[in-house]
Order: sequence, then C-alpha cells, then structure tokens
Amino acid sequence: MSDYAIGIDLGGTNLKAALVHRADGLVERRVTPTEADQGPDHVVDRMAGLVRDLLDAAPETGVAGIGIGSPGTINWERTTIRQPPNLPGWLEVNLRTALHSRLADGIPDRTPDRTDDKTDDEGEDPVVLVENDANVAGLGSAYYGSGRPFDSFVMVTLGTGVGGAIIYQNRIFRGATGAAGEIGHMTVNHAGPFENFGIGGAVEGYVGQRFLSHHARLRLRSQTDSLVHTLLDGDLDALSPKTLYEAAEAGDEPAREVLAWAGHKLGVVLGSAVNLLDIRTIIVGGGVSAAGTYILDPAREALREFTIPNLRSGLQLLREDRGNDVGLLGAARLAFDGEDAQVGR
Amino acid sequence: MSDYAIGIDLGGTNLKAALVHRADGLVERRVTPTEADQGPDHVVDRMAGLVRDLLDAAPETGVAGIGIGSPGTINWERTTIRQPPNLPGWLEVNLRTALHSRLADGIPDRTPDRTDDKTDDEGEDPVVLVENDANVAGLGSAYYGSGRPFDSFVMVTLGTGVGGAIIYQNRIFRGATGAAGEIGHMTVNHAGPFENFGIGGAVEGYVGQRFLSHHARLRLRSQTDSLVHTLLDGDLDALSPKTLYEAAEAGDEPAREVLAWAGHKLGVVLGSAVNLLDIRTIIVGGGVSAAGTYILDPAREALREFTIPNLRSGLQLLREDRGNDVGLLGAARLAFDGEDAQVGR
Repeated sequence: MSDYAIGIDLGGTNLKAALVHRADGLVERRVTPTEADQGPDHVVDRMAGLVRDLLDAAPETGVAGIGIGSPGTINWERTTIRQPPNLPGWLEVNLRTALHSRLADGIPDRTPDRTDDKTDDEGEDPVVLVENDANVAGLGSAYYGSGRPFDSFVMVTLGTGVGGAIIYQNRIFRGATGAAGEIGHMTVNHAGPFENFGIGGAVEGYVGQRFLSHHARLRLRSQTDSLVHTLLDGDLDALSPKTLYEAAEAGDEPAREVLAWAGHKLGVVLGSAVNLLDIRTIIVGGGVSAAGTYILDPAREALREFTIPNLRSGLQLLREDRGNDVGLLGAARLAFDGEDAQVGR
Repeated sequence: MSDYAIGIDLGGTNLKAALVHRADGLVERRVTPTEADQGPDHVVDRMAGLVRDLLDAAPETGVAGIGIGSPGTINWERTTIRQPPNLPGWLEVNLRTALHSRLADGIPDRTPDRTDDKTDDEGEDPVVLVENDANVAGLGSAYYGSGRPFDSFVMVTLGTGVGGAIIYQNRIFRGATGAAGEIGHMTVNHAGPFENFGIGGAVEGYVGQRFLSHHARLRLRSQTDSLVHTLLDGDLDALSPKTLYEAAEAGDEPAREVLAWAGHKLGVVLGSAVNLLDIRTIIVGGGVSAAGTYILDPAREALREFTIPNLRSGLQLLREDRGNDVGLLGAARLAFDGEDAQVGR
C-alpha cells in the first residue's frame, strides 16, 4: 500500500485538500471555494479536481486512498453524508460513489468489475471513506498532533459549532450508528438557552461562535467602559469572539469575564464526559481555541470541579498544537486505516 | 470450560451469591449479611464460605470461575477494589488474591506454582474477576435481562446512588482505567445542589434515594393535602422513595410531581449520554426503578427533548425486567467471558 493518501476537508465555505505522507504528514495542500450553493454534483466535481491535482503531485505508486471529513451525520459504512448543516440543500449524498465515478482510473479500486462474470458480489469497497469532521480532527490529532502521546482522549473543536470526538485506544469510538461524539449538544443546564439543535443549555449554546457573540453583546452592552466598544467603534452588533480575544489580550476585564464564563461551561460538560468515559485527556482544537488561556484556564478549573475525585488523577486539557491541519491529516489517516479506524471493528 | 460460574454481589448490607448456568441463568442462590464493619478479611472469609457452599451445589465439572460485582473503583486488571463507598474502612483490597488464597483447591487455577522452577512468571490469572456493580448489572442485562436484544445500551441503576454502565457491542466499555460509566455524577445543572462526590447538579443529587427523599420533604412540607403526610403519620422525616410511589399509586398529585421532577433530571442526563455515545437504548434497573411510570415516563420525555434530532430515531428507555438479579448474573458472566468482557481487548 502506498505511503501517501489524500485528505479532504469539506467545509461550507472552502474545500481543502492535502496530499499526506503516512509518516511525514502534510506534503502538498490545496484550497478552493466550495461553491456549495451550486449543489452536490458541482461540489463533487470540484473535489475530484482537487484530487486529480494532488494525484499529479503524488509519486508513481499513487495513493492508498481518499479520506473526507464532513459536517453532518455520516452513515456507519462511511460512504454517505446526511444533511450537513453548512451545506444547505444537501439531503443525502453518497460521496464514495459520487467521487469514485469521477476518478475510476486514478485511485485504488478493489471493487469487482460488475460487467464480468464474477459471482462475488461482496467485493471490496474502493478506498474512499467519509467521516464526521470532528472525528477526523481527533484521528489527525492522535496520529499527527497533540494527541500522539495518548491512546485515548476526547477531542473538542471550537468553531461555529462545538464538535467532539472520542478517540479510544487510537481509534474513533463511533457508537451504534457512527454518530457518537456530539459533545456540543450535551447540556450543562437543563433550563439554559436553546442552541441550533434545540437542546436547552447545551454547551454549544454558550461557546459556539454565534452564541458566544450573542451572550457577549448582552453582557457588555451596559459595560460601556469595556474596550470592545472602542474596538468596534461602538457597533456592538459586529462583535465576534475575535473582538473578545483582542480586548482580553489588551487587559480588558469585562471581555475576560465573558470568555471565562464560556470556558466554565466548556469545563462543566467535559467533566461530565470524563465521568462517563473515564478518558482523562481532553484536546481542544478549532478556531475559538485561539482564545487560549482566557477560555481554557477557566475550562480546566471547571473540568476538575465537575469530575469525580477518583478520576481527577492525570486529568488534563491541552490545546491542539497543529491547529486545523489535524482535520486534513485525520481525513488522510482514514484511508491508511481503512475500516479499521473505529472501535469495535 | 464448565458451563457453570459463581456470581457474587458485594453489597454494604448483604452478600449475595449465585450459581449460574451459562445458558439457563440462576441455579442456586445464597444471601448472608456482609458484616462489613468487621473488615475486609472477615468479609472475604464469608465470601469464601458462600463460594464453597455453591461449589457443593455445582456439578462434578466445577465452575468456570468466580465473578464479583462491587461498589467503588476497580482497577484495570479487575483484581482490586478501592474505597467502596458502602464498605467503610476498606481502602484497597485485592479480592482475587484474597479469595484465591482461601479457595486454592476449589476453583480453576492456571497460575503457575511459584515454588517450582518454571521461568514463565507471566502465567495465567485464576478466574476470579471483580467489576463495578453497575457494570456487572449491564453485563447481566446484556446476556440474561432486558438487554438481550441489543448489542449496545446504556444501563442505569437507581438505588442509594445512581450507577451506570456502557455496554458496547455486548461488552463493557471501561474507559482508560476501568472506571467508565459514572452517569450518576454527570451534571444536568452546573448550578445545582451537590451530591456525594461534590459535583454540582449531578443527577444523583436529584434521583439518588437520599437526595430524592430530601427534595421531596422540602417540596411536600407545605403541601399538607398530600397523601404522604397521612402515610407517614405526619412524620415527614421518615419519607422515602417508597412513600412517594405509594402515594403516587394512590393518585396523589404532589407525590407524582416530585417523581416527575426527578425523572426529568434522569432524562436530561440520558439525553447528554446519547449525544455523546450514539447508543440509543437505555435500560433502567435498581430499586428506585420500581417507581415505574412515575419516574420513567417523564424521563422518556426529557430524554427525547435533550437528544439531538438526528439521534432520536430508535431511542428507547426500558425497565430491566430481571430486577436486581442482573447483578449476580452479570458477575457470573465475567467468569465465562474472562478478560474478554470489555471493549478494547
């Protein structure tokens, strides 16, 4: 099997892809707009274009396969994405079939040729595997990022939403149907505000970018001495997590308080996760994790407070030091591991 | 290997043991007071006595081994219990060694004789395995109880505390050190009341027997028309969950409201667990589950409300129909399965 694979990150705005070497990591990368509004066929065409481009950059031996990280629910077979939240109008798309039909000559294909007389209908699937974007970030961290020293950890990605993954004994814990890891929708307060999935008091409703910005506006509106007003020229509607970090960095106490408030909620939910899983290493990635200590220190404190004493030894919350690259790396890793990348297989 | 095994339930009050047939389930059972106040040595003596008694009842072929369900934290090797909450003064006890030394002739022993010249220091452990009591209840349910039709489910035991277990693909998910499944200590409200481990708003702080009784007293004190006052001859201090069920059965609305309040908290935490695990079958066992519909119906409602829409299909909350027997059955099952009874081996 080739030591190269292609990883794709299917985002609502951008389509990223990389050629990845099994040991060395990222070799080449490409980014192009997703143009999701033009529908699945168009996007898969664009994905196939990126793949062809990267195959040209790969050595003669080709690639082990293609792995794709995608938002939304993925089926157990890792072929199909369903209603990805950032790709409006996509209902159910079998990416393996769609991509494979466009690339039949370029990637390893162990599917028996249906036109011949072979009776073995089972065959083997072509190595195109799709997995939830938080799960591939976890897998990427496990093999190429901050997760390398640990067999098991919980990955949390802080961005538009709050994603999660359980890496157990170096593999993705997928649950009964492949949808495990939805930490962002675990509640920390049953009477709390709703988030995107309508769950009251789920952590995404506090820490997800849009929610955090919303809460910060309410909290800071009357605190006219906060630096955020200056940073935004008085237009509080333009507030984003980035504004909060900038103000916090500059020493603004009100901004720090909001970030600490959000970090506390994150730590609470992680404590619950540790109690349930007995997995004591947490790795935080994604854009909002750039808030660093202002979110993560309060999260660490709450994590400890909400973890039962017997499980506090060895408890740690780390920041993913490879940033968003773990998504591409983990997607490629899917292709190296094949179906073996999950617990229970 | 024999088709019989012995299961032991090490409770704070009673020591229960049973001879279990792999296919037929419970064959013989024994109960005796634990006498925990007389210390570990005394209790292990009593356990050994029960085992000898049951070995006499076993066929000539003997037993496959002995499994023990115990409160407290169990080590990864399944030999040792640490600080079991209902056994005051027990710090760390290696039950495998302790029991084995008392039963050297009666149970299968594949440990090499240390007095001979064999250099194989690894050897094989005698088949005495200890596991957390909620985990063995889950295993018992999976093989002999309401869990039989399901590969994966979450077990919750409602009693003095709220125990939990994750059964994943017919095995116990143990986490990194063997302590996974502490559902009772997952929080449903970060600002809620403390429970035994000092976690704010953990579900045990609402649904655990003592806490439920405490909350009910506060709630019902001023509701003088509630039937519980009559049932208790005005002595509200004597209120227990049992009083609540009796009043609820008799149609008392205030008692039903308290049970529904507790059931709601249970459903909330189970929704969080489903979001994290993508395991959609919940089985509720233990004493408090006798409250049946008064707790479980509100729990079902909240479970659905706090589970993300993508995971609601197939969601179900069932009552364990084998009652507390699943603890003994699951303990014996440990011995049939050996080290294989856990995910990740």
